[in-house]
Amino acid sequence: MVGAAGRRDDRPALPGAHVLVGPRFTTPFTAAADALRLVHVAGAGVDGIDEQALPPGVAVANTFHHEASIAEYAVATTVLMRRRLQQQDAALRHGRWASPVYDPALQQSSGLDGATVGFVGLGHIGRRAWQAFRALGARGIAVSRSGSSAEGLAWTATVDRLHQLLDEADVLVLCLPLRAETRHLIGEHELWRLGPDAMLVNVARGAVVDPAALYTALAERRIGGAVIDTWYAYPTAGAAARPAEQPFELLDNVFMTPHISGVTTQTFRGRVRDIARNLQLLARGDDLERVVLTGR
Amino acid sequence: MVGAAGRRDDRPALPGAHVLVGPRFTTPFTAAADALRLVHVAGAGVDGIDEQALPPGVAVANTFHHEASIAEYAVATTVLMRRRLQQQDAALRHGRWASPVYDPALQQSSGLDGATVGFVGLGHIGRRAWQAFRALGARGIAVSRSGSSAEGLAWTATVDRLHQLLDEADVLVLCLPLRAETRHLIGEHELWRLGPDAMLVNVARGAVVDPAALYTALAERRIGGAVIDTWYAYPTAGAAARPAEQPFELLDNVFMTPHISGVTTQTFRGRVRDIARNLQLLARGDDLERVVLTGR
Repeated sequence: MVGAAGRRDDRPALPGAHVLVGPRFTTPFTAAADALRLVHVAGAGVDGIDEQALPPGVAVANTFHHEASIAEYAVATTVLMRRRLQQQDAALRHGRWASPVYDPALQQSSGLDGATVGFVGLGHIGRRAWQAFRALGARGIAVSRSGSSAEGLAWTATVDRLHQLLDEADVLVLCLPLRAETRHLIGEHELWRLGPDAMLVNVARGAVVDPAALYTALAERRIGGAVIDTWYAYPTAGAAARPAEQPFELLDNVFMTPHISGVTTQTFRGRVRDIARNLQLLARGDDLERVVLTGR
Repeated sequence: MVGAAGRRDDRPALPGAHVLVGPRFTTPFTAAADALRLVHVAGAGVDGIDEQALPPGVAVANTFHHEASIAEYAVATTVLMRRRLQQQDAALRHGRWASPVYDPALQQSSGLDGATVGFVGLGHIGRRAWQAFRALGARGIAVSRSGSSAEGLAWTATVDRLHQLLDEADVLVLCLPLRAETRHLIGEHELWRLGPDAMLVNVARGAVVDPAALYTALAERRIGGAVIDTWYAYPTAGAAARPAEQPFELLDNVFMTPHISGVTTQTFRGRVRDIARNLQLLARGDDLERVVLTGR
């Protein structure tokens, strides 16, 4: 039996279930998990799983397939912001040609060719995003926990060189996991280092950036702009919620999307295949794939 | 002496000028071109140059450097349209999470991974755009005048296989030159072949697409959407003009920009270097580069 997934309370589905497909498992779930063997999150992040709450032997598996979707999102939104394409669309709908060719008061925009893109985190998503930026002529640099590298990057290092990355980057792409030590990794000082000609893309988790510092940096134009796909508050039911306490929606140097960067048919189909495969393996008694935690 | 460029009437600058840097040379220019040796357009297209009007021996040179800028524009706007990112930004500013994760009535969008992108024209721009789409996992097909190929394309052919390309393409990228035989190459029938799940990106010249047919196809949802950067009417002075007779600005399945796809600092600097180099060569009496026409 597979317990129901979703944003609603999964606990009533737990008694008798061998598998829970869902994003959360916390202490209130433990008592109801009387037959549980596997919690399968339907994405990469297991930050909703409290390892201490897991009954002994219960495995937690994750799944990916979102790299390509997130990479194209990061590239598209970066170009959109750097080139001011939305503003040009809006102006042309009123017959105004918002281009330096027609209006000498406007500045030329800069393409990605030769721009420096700094990645914080270099897992599945960072590597795929780098491939996409690289194809557009960008220079890439990266810091990550392990300091590992990928083909074509100008330099890579561990996170202790974050400030050097911020100094060099024209575009900062955040694609690291949320952990205790990465919470508010990007704060007031880091945004100041990033500077007014650079922009930030957060496809990681909202909380890796201090929201008050981000809002102030954007409102005071201390950074050039931000693409924010991952937020500080989410709908608890239905599809309505303010995504942050700060009024990001009033800013014109922000592009804000509802945690959609990885949500495509391609991602969904790949994940369904992965989860179905792990259910088969569990039923057969074989080793599961992509197990990232196990209850002790 | 170098004649003044720009959208204004270049004729008063012509007497005594050896070089005209500008987009147009037509019959009314001929009499004033008393010392002219070179017309240097500041882009790729020479569709504003009337070969018959050129005094004998006057060369016409062009310049590129816009490929990377146009490629990133094509990829970014395609992802923007296919993923409905603008609508999601607008909704989230009002606290609405326009994602199938939160609103089951919404359909999942499709990424470019595995999508078929059909190029009409495979010159500098088509090849560079293909590199960018390829990095995002797309399948590529192309038709062009010569039928030439590029690495990784699933198939290429001459323009007589345009209809097969339209049948297969999820994204149609127009990047061919405007010539007598390519005028309104894409008309009612071609848009019908493209179909309601596919979109069009025009970074060529407006007139390669029949505007009335395009407007109707979009308004009646016979095609999924269009990114239009090249238009049917341009400002003759200042920065205001309706870009077409048809009210494209009323459509929500269009992204419209003011012929900006190639306008970046990277393009500008590359072109200035090219033009300066040809002026040096001309002054020295050496052979010019990128001569595409010569007056007879």
